[in-house]
Amino acid sequence: MIDLNTLPERLLLGPGPSNAHPRVLDALSRPLLGHLDPLFIELLDEVKQGLRNVFGTTNAFTLPISATGSAGMEACMVNLLEPGDNILVGVNGVFGGRMCEVASRAGAKVHRVEAAFGEPLDVDAMVTAIRATRPQLTAFVHAETSTGVLQRVPEIAAAAREVGSLVVLDCVTSVAGVAVELDEWGIDAAYSGTQKCLSCPPSLSPVSFSDRALERVRERATPVQSWYLDVSLLAGYYEGAKRAYHHTAPISSIYGLSEGLQLVEEEGLAAREARHREAAAALIDGVAEFGFTPLVAAEHRLPMLTSLQLPEAILNSGEAELRGALLNKHNIEVGAGLGSLAGQIWRVGLMGENARITSVDRLVGALREELS
Amino acid sequence: MIDLNTLPERLLLGPGPSNAHPRVLDALSRPLLGHLDPLFIELLDEVKQGLRNVFGTTNAFTLPISATGSAGMEACMVNLLEPGDNILVGVNGVFGGRMCEVASRAGAKVHRVEAAFGEPLDVDAMVTAIRATRPQLTAFVHAETSTGVLQRVPEIAAAAREVGSLVVLDCVTSVAGVAVELDEWGIDAAYSGTQKCLSCPPSLSPVSFSDRALERVRERATPVQSWYLDVSLLAGYYEGAKRAYHHTAPISSIYGLSEGLQLVEEEGLAAREARHREAAAALIDGVAEFGFTPLVAAEHRLPMLTSLQLPEAILNSGEAELRGALLNKHNIEVGAGLGSLAGQIWRVGLMGENARITSVDRLVGALREELS
Repeated sequence: MIDLNTLPERLLLGPGPSNAHPRVLDALSRPLLGHLDPLFIELLDEVKQGLRNVFGTTNAFTLPISATGSAGMEACMVNLLEPGDNILVGVNGVFGGRMCEVASRAGAKVHRVEAAFGEPLDVDAMVTAIRATRPQLTAFVHAETSTGVLQRVPEIAAAAREVGSLVVLDCVTSVAGVAVELDEWGIDAAYSGTQKCLSCPPSLSPVSFSDRALERVRERATPVQSWYLDVSLLAGYYEGAKRAYHHTAPISSIYGLSEGLQLVEEEGLAAREARHREAAAALIDGVAEFGFTPLVAAEHRLPMLTSLQLPEAILNSGEAELRGALLNKHNIEVGAGLGSLAGQIWRVGLMGENARITSVDRLVGALREELS
Repeated sequence: MIDLNTLPERLLLGPGPSNAHPRVLDALSRPLLGHLDPLFIELLDEVKQGLRNVFGTTNAFTLPISATGSAGMEACMVNLLEPGDNILVGVNGVFGGRMCEVASRAGAKVHRVEAAFGEPLDVDAMVTAIRATRPQLTAFVHAETSTGVLQRVPEIAAAAREVGSLVVLDCVTSVAGVAVELDEWGIDAAYSGTQKCLSCPPSLSPVSFSDRALERVRERATPVQSWYLDVSLLAGYYEGAKRAYHHTAPISSIYGLSEGLQLVEEEGLAAREARHREAAAALIDGVAEFGFTPLVAAEHRLPMLTSLQLPEAILNSGEAELRGALLNKHNIEVGAGLGSLAGQIWRVGLMGENARITSVDRLVGALREELS
């Protein structure tokens, strides 16, 4: 059996998980409360408020789904879509593609607006398609973790609302790393993950639903296909005076999230975003000497996740071998390309606590050792 | 903000979560590995083997779903049912009822065989109904956490297999507390939770699918309605030589489960069951002086969860107030009744690490103080 005390301390510079903050790790090991304990309910209410802060919303229904980010995506789709509904999805990476798949399994007719991996969605193309298809739901990704593209949101959201469409935004990688402003942008449902810029372990998916979205759920003709993700049932536990048992909330994970949100509050969102931007700039500078070039144009680049095109020499000598050496000799993890970018790029995450020049220095030092 | 370091140490004697073992809490705070790190994959393979041990199975597809126990229930239903399928569900408590609801949302026609809350399912009634309805799926609960009833399994499972039905068994509360023998009993899919007799926090749902169950999934005419819970997609990450990204596995929770399974192995399943039985017997003896009587007949009683009928005096003075006093003055949590038993019973869990005479002594001492 693997002895957990002998596990190496990796520097996790892939697309997530990032390293959890030591205070978060400590929080995970606090003794359990029951999920109906008034003290735990009080903590949960604080967590919900902290999540509203990082989502930029006053939405009452803002809470951590008891499963990882992709379950948050599924929660948005299965609550807001009924069989036969039209959904328009912007696809410029793996996670836009995943939205199509999840929506299709909810019985929706899926319309796609595509952009090349590494490019943002074309706002005009999205607006035109929204006006043409008049979908019940419009969905796209704020921060595409498969490519490192940051999407401009407000114009697409406004066009969707003009035709009565609800808007779903994937904020898995953006939350607590760049500004997320659900209310200002007019987003009806959004989901995130804890293992990126919140510096918590993977296990929860923060979600937020607007009142307009909840109204749509109330007006459904068919039951939500997932009992576990049904927001009306979740509301019975997470909201109101009487907290009714639905499922058993993951106590320890929520302790960790509580501490992670506290750390965000202590630092402030603006300072945190600046730190992410500074680290990303240092990364691009630092790896230039080895011939890595950013995949994404500067104005669309995510600060917390940088896609680096591999230089010819590394493509020829084997990028997987070099990633293996970084992991095994230097305890540094970087991410491989996904989908059509597999073998072509690395994805380097500088997320949450890892968004520091010291992380960049360690990676650059290791690369220098391996490549010289 | 609540300071996590000031949280009281509760003795959790409700229906779950139970207290996590100190070694499990320590495991949760180990530094994260990436979810595709070869070391983490090795750990995951060990966890799968440990789960096979507690499920009594050699099923290759045995793994922790990245969500709590009810998601394990949903995983069984949505993978094994197609719209229009017939399912026969044994209902003698809240969790049998939940199975009906989840199956119905998967589009199945639900047939129920009911027994009174506090009674086991009548085996003859189940067998007769199975032969009459010849369902695609038969589902029932091994250990009903809402009532404290242990169900006899083999005859029902055999009757189901005779008519070509797959069999799903809810083992949320039984795993690692009483013998679970999926292979010997002929069970095709089972699910559990980590927060009961495994002494881990809530956050994962161990599941196991037989080859026969996986064959049924392969033969489906329709896609599994949940992308997150689709066992074919999960297999791509949890099995085989190439581990493909599906969702991001909850690293820390799996560390905890690994340690929990290690503790089970060190103790041995037979010794663990004996400890649970001894603690339950001591509980029933210990609370008799206050007039509590067990709801369930001795031969059907769960050792890890005892439903106690409340004496007249407590019914009159307010059972919720007394539970509140136990919690706030003595840091002991006991569970309320669910469904039709709300206000009528308490559910006292002696699960995993808490299944000790010392837990009983603490509860009896506190009751004596409150009731004398």
